[in-house]
Amino acid sequence: MSIIIDETHESSAQSWVQSANRMDGDFPLQNLPMGVFRTDMRHPPRPGIRIGSSVLDLPALLETQSVRLGEHEQVALRQTTLNAWMALGRRSSSALRRSLFELLHERANARTREAVAACLVPIEDCTMLLPASIGDFTDFYTSIHHARRASEAVRGEATLHPNFQSIPIAYHGRSSSIAVSGPPCHRPYGVTGATSGYRPSEKLDFELEVGFYVSETAYGKLPFTVDEADRHLFGFCLVNDWSARDIQRWEAFPLGPFLAKSFMTTTSAWIVTAEALAPFRVAPAAREPDAPPLAAELTSAAHASLGAIDLSLTVTLQSRLMREAGMPGMVIARPNFKDQYWSAAQMITHHASNGCSLRSGDLISSGTVSGPEREDSGCLLERTRDGQSPFTLPSGESRSYLSDGDTIAFSGRCTREGFRSIGFGACVADVVNPPA
Amino acid sequence: MSIIIDETHESSAQSWVQSANRMDGDFPLQNLPMGVFRTDMRHPPRPGIRIGSSVLDLPALLETQSVRLGEHEQVALRQTTLNAWMALGRRSSSALRRSLFELLHERANARTREAVAACLVPIEDCTMLLPASIGDFTDFYTSIHHARRASEAVRGEATLHPNFQSIPIAYHGRSSSIAVSGPPCHRPYGVTGATSGYRPSEKLDFELEVGFYVSETAYGKLPFTVDEADRHLFGFCLVNDWSARDIQRWEAFPLGPFLAKSFMTTTSAWIVTAEALAPFRVAPAAREPDAPPLAAELTSAAHASLGAIDLSLTVTLQSRLMREAGMPGMVIARPNFKDQYWSAAQMITHHASNGCSLRSGDLISSGTVSGPEREDSGCLLERTRDGQSPFTLPSGESRSYLSDGDTIAFSGRCTREGFRSIGFGACVADVVNPPA
Repeated sequence: MSIIIDETHESSAQSWVQSANRMDGDFPLQNLPMGVFRTDMRHPPRPGIRIGSSVLDLPALLETQSVRLGEHEQVALRQTTLNAWMALGRRSSSALRRSLFELLHERANARTREAVAACLVPIEDCTMLLPASIGDFTDFYTSIHHARRASEAVRGEATLHPNFQSIPIAYHGRSSSIAVSGPPCHRPYGVTGATSGYRPSEKLDFELEVGFYVSETAYGKLPFTVDEADRHLFGFCLVNDWSARDIQRWEAFPLGPFLAKSFMTTTSAWIVTAEALAPFRVAPAAREPDAPPLAAELTSAAHASLGAIDLSLTVTLQSRLMREAGMPGMVIARPNFKDQYWSAAQMITHHASNGCSLRSGDLISSGTVSGPEREDSGCLLERTRDGQSPFTLPSGESRSYLSDGDTIAFSGRCTREGFRSIGFGACVADVVNPPA
Repeated sequence: MSIIIDETHESSAQSWVQSANRMDGDFPLQNLPMGVFRTDMRHPPRPGIRIGSSVLDLPALLETQSVRLGEHEQVALRQTTLNAWMALGRRSSSALRRSLFELLHERANARTREAVAACLVPIEDCTMLLPASIGDFTDFYTSIHHARRASEAVRGEATLHPNFQSIPIAYHGRSSSIAVSGPPCHRPYGVTGATSGYRPSEKLDFELEVGFYVSETAYGKLPFTVDEADRHLFGFCLVNDWSARDIQRWEAFPLGPFLAKSFMTTTSAWIVTAEALAPFRVAPAAREPDAPPLAAELTSAAHASLGAIDLSLTVTLQSRLMREAGMPGMVIARPNFKDQYWSAAQMITHHASNGCSLRSGDLISSGTVSGPEREDSGCLLERTRDGQSPFTLPSGESRSYLSDGDTIAFSGRCTREGFRSIGFGACVADVVNPPA
């Protein structure tokens, strides 16, 4: 495991891009997340770096020769997705970060500033796209608080299944319906019982999750340690794994969720790199004293002290009525990613433990992130006990599950004394009725 | 639904490619399955058509101008995968079939034969590759006989879960570990209980399945009928969905199988097109009298009479001892694909019913194909009652699950009075111990 905190994390560093220096902004000089954007249909999509309210066009930057990178690295940054870039691994990621930090730092000279400024595109002129061609999408189930409360909501008992503390549970998700923040979520139709017929889901839910993109692991290479796995972490994003609880309940035996999840998954556009997150690494949540012994491949001393990430999350709900009345959204949960029972590196380790290869650009997600308290539930199944305990919005409306016109917005922010706070940008979508 | 039987299905038609005319061959003139092959590393992979013991190089054929196709069609056949070709739909598929039938028919003139013969590559000079870049792999569970016997093996009761006859159950599979027939299956490692530790699976199983590649469906286009779904069927192959039953048992609650399946999936190399299969369409298996009412979108009169495919399958097991003693493999099951409770078109319909898009080149598989009798079980979980009723090989060895050195080979063949029989080619792999 290599977690490097260097001058790119210095809290006092400012950028000559003034919008990056707002204290409440998600994208200061210390963040530099990567994404893929397009400005118009005449130009192909291309990789960019977010800085303040601008996007740094990386292929354009390469043309200015202000940044020194190897030929493979330059080729990778000229693709329409970041898959090839992710395949190059952490060394390239670190080198790019250090170069960009210098170019965008307020101490950069006038000639550099001029050259780089010409490659900045205002965010409002950019359409953000999926940052990678996602070969496989895997969704885990790693919050012990979610597992207990979901069990309570579904089975009436807040008990853990015996496997939960033994291995990180997961299922394969659907790649084709992953979309970047923005487009609406169409309420899915489906069959919810033997005599239900085919009709719109009445239990549409969100799931607050943290996703991460990985670099390739070899097929059949065993054992694969948690420290090795950590090196395959490229970067993180927010994920809304929309779920139709009534469809899920009917279909999920014996093979798990299928159509209850596949209709849409929303992700934030920017990948906050593992490098940017280095200062926010913390010890994973304590294991429960009665937890069964772990497989040897899932342990490491370094992981035990720095395997998790201190990332505060919020879920905001705004109904159509609230929006029309000019009321702000209501924050309905504030969990933290550090409370997951299993870390991102443990998820990768487990994923590869049977010999299965991961490909660069695969997206892995944490499963619902829920805090210890019910008020910090990462989904409504838990929060409302499957609709049995609705809550009230400031508009006076009641919610057990999502209504048409509701907007669900996630945010994520890493904060630590002595470091500049960084954020994840938007992961937002409205619920709409499907077209006739 | 359009199922066209025309002169390309005439049983008397012979090819000037003599190896295609062997009565027991899988690849006569009436078949013409598509695949992607490569001859050496200097030339890129390219689409080909199997005829007898040769592969017709399609990009080379286009150069000869013996076949008239539109520009889009020509571009699609010059790619390294068939995704773009599949996207063009059934009209292009039919047109290509008719052209190739003429070019390869014994009545073709000498000049045509000469031009086409120059594009034939002996199969032994070809390395077969995945025919498509598989965006998503979905695995169904559609044999009622499998569902009952698997339930008996796992839960002690041969009962159906109430959802089985209401909707075709499925889960998302793993794309990255799908391989074309040939490479060995590495016995997976995993955790199989709270105190098991991490060790090789002791219950490695095969699953005999029939897969199909589809063409794109639109996101959110509802309702999507079973007749429309049938038009998105590009073609079929054999699939071995290798399964580790002990890993599966421990991990599968509540989200279904994950590492128990993701370590490898083997497919046959050739896609037998929906057009080639037209004469073998039959009525789906009768629905059980007490089945709950179906969702309206899953019904159609045409489907009720021709929705299934009469495809005889065999599973052959040969142990290392048998191989070394020169003994042939033992046929351990002979189920038929027509006995599945849900058809391929119904699987597509259900898949798209929540609004989820399918992409051209997605692979969907039927789940285990098992016949009514235990002797025609498409996996060992059923056949041996999860290892409780082992069977004996001709070598005197006993099998409850697979041993290292075992070879599992599938074959598939469509036969009907008055029509030329066609086959699917090999879907074969050895079980090996993973490298140290």
